[in-house]
Amino acid sequence: MKLLRYGPKGAERPAVLDSDGNMRDLSGVVADIDGETLAPDSLAKLAALDTGSLPLVEGTPRIGSAIARPGKFLCVGLNYADHARETGKQPPEEPVLFGKAANAISGPNDDVEIPRGSEKTDWEVELGIVIGSRAKYVSEADALDHVAGYALVNDVSERSFQSERGGQWIKGKSHDTFGPVGPWLVTKDEIADVQNIDLWLDVDGERRQTGNTSTMIFGVAHLVHYISQFMTLEPGDIIATGTPPGVGLGMKPPVFLKAGQVVTLGAAGLGEQRQVMVTA
Amino acid sequence: MKLLRYGPKGAERPAVLDSDGNMRDLSGVVADIDGETLAPDSLAKLAALDTGSLPLVEGTPRIGSAIARPGKFLCVGLNYADHARETGKQPPEEPVLFGKAANAISGPNDDVEIPRGSEKTDWEVELGIVIGSRAKYVSEADALDHVAGYALVNDVSERSFQSERGGQWIKGKSHDTFGPVGPWLVTKDEIADVQNIDLWLDVDGERRQTGNTSTMIFGVAHLVHYISQFMTLEPGDIIATGTPPGVGLGMKPPVFLKAGQVVTLGAAGLGEQRQVMVTA
Repeated sequence: MKLLRYGPKGAERPAVLDSDGNMRDLSGVVADIDGETLAPDSLAKLAALDTGSLPLVEGTPRIGSAIARPGKFLCVGLNYADHARETGKQPPEEPVLFGKAANAISGPNDDVEIPRGSEKTDWEVELGIVIGSRAKYVSEADALDHVAGYALVNDVSERSFQSERGGQWIKGKSHDTFGPVGPWLVTKDEIADVQNIDLWLDVDGERRQTGNTSTMIFGVAHLVHYISQFMTLEPGDIIATGTPPGVGLGMKPPVFLKAGQVVTLGAAGLGEQRQVMVTA
Repeated sequence: MKLLRYGPKGAERPAVLDSDGNMRDLSGVVADIDGETLAPDSLAKLAALDTGSLPLVEGTPRIGSAIARPGKFLCVGLNYADHARETGKQPPEEPVLFGKAANAISGPNDDVEIPRGSEKTDWEVELGIVIGSRAKYVSEADALDHVAGYALVNDVSERSFQSERGGQWIKGKSHDTFGPVGPWLVTKDEIADVQNIDLWLDVDGERRQTGNTSTMIFGVAHLVHYISQFMTLEPGDIIATGTPPGVGLGMKPPVFLKAGQVVTLGAAGLGEQRQVMVTA
């Protein structure tokens, strides 16, 4: 299934794509695409619906973040060996974990704000894991049982705030609109091999990032297992799994985003995003 | 006002202390002590209630975290010059900010879990700021307008997970029960000078931390202003403002918590907490 949310920001309604790719309204069935809806039993009920009998969504409404605001929006750093090299860092021995404030979550095609005073706003196309059931001390073998599905994420980052302002990366990762998620949450049964997904990102139509999840240092099952040793993962939590090479920080000289530029990105099977940069 | 939450974990009910210090149930008035209830208008309505007419809470129920799970549980690091020194670090030039996963929030007297494999679980008594209204790019002069009140926080920390496992501090700050908050949310009108609050913490009855918020490097108004430049603060968000000297990591040799030990802590006007350490 491809689940999504449509309508004005803060008043999104749940929907599902039917077999023809049309949006069908789910608000008579579930309240939202959130932790409760992503539980295995709930997803099984949705999968059994005759989508053709659900109300067709008319027009071309705004698409919201594919899931409601999560309890946690975690990110993994330096998880592609090539990207670690372009930032001048050694590949990590164990996953580098950081937090993005959940209020950064945004629709896939919403404008992205360049924060006041920012000169180093950067892009990062990523595979996002969406948790479906509580995971605390889970083994790597059982880890995928706790995953509801996947979504495309742009882990927008302000490099100066992240690394030059004292301390922890969260400062550069959490501005409003720094977390476009979607267009869809794709349930895991639709993804043949999560470790073989092509990713790409363009700025003003020029290709900047090209990658494939096959070159992740730590794969999806390991990440869920690993993070669950430190904190409890809960339904609806999002884990952005790191970005392949090609970020602005890694260019020589580095290149960053300016108001008016357009970022487009995609992942095979997970859809595409398009964001216009605006000033905050 | 002193607002609090009582009852089983996950099913807490809101309450307020009356002028005799008795708990009065607020569930006929507000749904929870959360962002909605902490808005200035809502707090003004609560302040106008005749608390003596509210239902008395019978018995001695469990006390929950003083506020419902926040959208963000932020923490400030190294914000007391003496504490920065005991960790071997220079006082920071601007606030060090990190995230604690919000699922770490816990009642003030709930057991605290020592994570599996942990040998360095440590304590940190802190003043917690609770946000009452949305704050984005607010000036230092206006910052306190966005604060609903204050609460006592123990920013429980696993030092090895925090600093020896690759990357960011969130790994050592986010285990379930690592964020006791309460017993009360004390509205700001009851705090004469937030930069003159005594803090203390004992382990098994031995004094470990003694401090006063007057020695903070960055005060409450500056922190709210500062953080709002990087991310939007929202009603119900918590900011733990850093810990005074006396953490286990700073002792010579370092001393950490073991199952069965009891941590008690308090802050003048904000109440006291008591936690028994247990194995996860």
